[in-house]
Amino acid sequence: MKDSGRPIGVFDSGLGGLTVFKALRRLLPGEDLIYFGDTARVPYGTKSPEAVVAFSKEIAAFLFEKKIKLLVVACNTASSLALDAVRGISPVPVLGVIVPGVEAALKAAPRGGRILVTGTSATVRSRAYSRALAAAGRGVSVVEKACPLFVPLVEEGWCSKPVAAAVAREYLAPFRKKKIDALILGCTHYPMLKKVISRVMGPRTRIVDSAHAAALCARAELEGRGLLNPGRGGRSEFIVSDAPERFSVLARRLLGIRTGKVTVKRF
Amino acid sequence: MKDSGRPIGVFDSGLGGLTVFKALRRLLPGEDLIYFGDTARVPYGTKSPEAVVAFSKEIAAFLFEKKIKLLVVACNTASSLALDAVRGISPVPVLGVIVPGVEAALKAAPRGGRILVTGTSATVRSRAYSRALAAAGRGVSVVEKACPLFVPLVEEGWCSKPVAAAVAREYLAPFRKKKIDALILGCTHYPMLKKVISRVMGPRTRIVDSAHAAALCARAELEGRGLLNPGRGGRSEFIVSDAPERFSVLARRLLGIRTGKVTVKRF
Repeated sequence: MKDSGRPIGVFDSGLGGLTVFKALRRLLPGEDLIYFGDTARVPYGTKSPEAVVAFSKEIAAFLFEKKIKLLVVACNTASSLALDAVRGISPVPVLGVIVPGVEAALKAAPRGGRILVTGTSATVRSRAYSRALAAAGRGVSVVEKACPLFVPLVEEGWCSKPVAAAVAREYLAPFRKKKIDALILGCTHYPMLKKVISRVMGPRTRIVDSAHAAALCARAELEGRGLLNPGRGGRSEFIVSDAPERFSVLARRLLGIRTGKVTVKRF
Repeated sequence: MKDSGRPIGVFDSGLGGLTVFKALRRLLPGEDLIYFGDTARVPYGTKSPEAVVAFSKEIAAFLFEKKIKLLVVACNTASSLALDAVRGISPVPVLGVIVPGVEAALKAAPRGGRILVTGTSATVRSRAYSRALAAAGRGVSVVEKACPLFVPLVEEGWCSKPVAAAVAREYLAPFRKKKIDALILGCTHYPMLKKVISRVMGPRTRIVDSAHAAALCARAELEGRGLLNPGRGGRSEFIVSDAPERFSVLARRLLGIRTGKVTVKRF
């Protein structure tokens, strides 16, 4: 098989990474995509760095066997904690979602502006976003806030219920008066709460979603290496470590994605 | 070692089972207790029956190596889905939390009364409570309601925040007018939300917590087999599959339990 004809691997702790999958599908209609959701061990955001590294390497090794040409780590927690470890065992380029999110935020915030990073407890504890934003040397100031209830809220399908607004206020109302220029949705589930979050933060704050930015990075990476598969008709394959029916139902309900048959790979 | 001197094993998907641990500790001060929390794979409530059975058998086998004399499955989801499977491989008696919870509810509700069972999605889907209540032949009518946000709400330490009341109303307000005699807290995390739940349901509804009932069953089982270790000074040991510091902090914050050193066993 020509290298450009090989699939792109994408993985996440569960179904949140489907926001990245959707952006990839839109931007790269000719590519075959293999999505892996670690639904047996979801969520990653409350687990230890050691566990997240071990799970990520296991999944990456499984996807390498599928002869992928590029690996996209669509989970912010895994991108924060396990990117180097995965790169260390990878025969192909590996992209995370942190750097694309940071680039998008720096476009949205002025030099010296204020950026609020939201994410899981593990992502915030890792300080991966703060470090990447500091490294960009644009003099922005950064605050980070863990919002662990957002993932189960999304998975419950409650994004437009009053209770979603109540949870968002609980986490974010204290930041409303702090002149935040950009808020990074530092977890792939959070774009599904974008409206609610935007309402709490007010019109001053731009809400930055790294899914589209990550897909742009993936396209640039493939172009740069001559690995792009142009055209249309790329296939999509979905693999999970548990509960394929639930994954399929939620993919459709939350993101309008029709998965077809979802296969199971247990570790 | 005399058989009565051997420890009791207790396991849960995470830290919710500590409500059962606490009841055991209170009722059986002379017993050595080994608690295992599967924090690498928590929560179980959204996972498939196959996964819950596999995880439960793995943990049980690990606890059998510790020469336990009794195994208490403190997780409602595992009790609903994996009790027979664990008994099938167990050299010692195995108790779950469903039957004790049912017995307590039948004491709280009149013959022909109405019982509402709350629990995780997996517990409710299993219909384990409905079947056990029907088998008791007391003519009660049963409704079941999955409340998947309750576990993360508890783990966030938000039990007395207004948002906890908002979530409880979202799940339970439709049942308030339905003359519920007893509500079973069918998940070991839920006792920590007892006040909030009681306020939504009103004074008519008795709230039934299976932790104490399960501890009573454990004592009766040990007495019946001549395995009770009387007296005081029993030791407590805590083992988790991930993130021992987080477990220790939450055990103290949510339940006032000082765990001391928590060891890690990864699968």
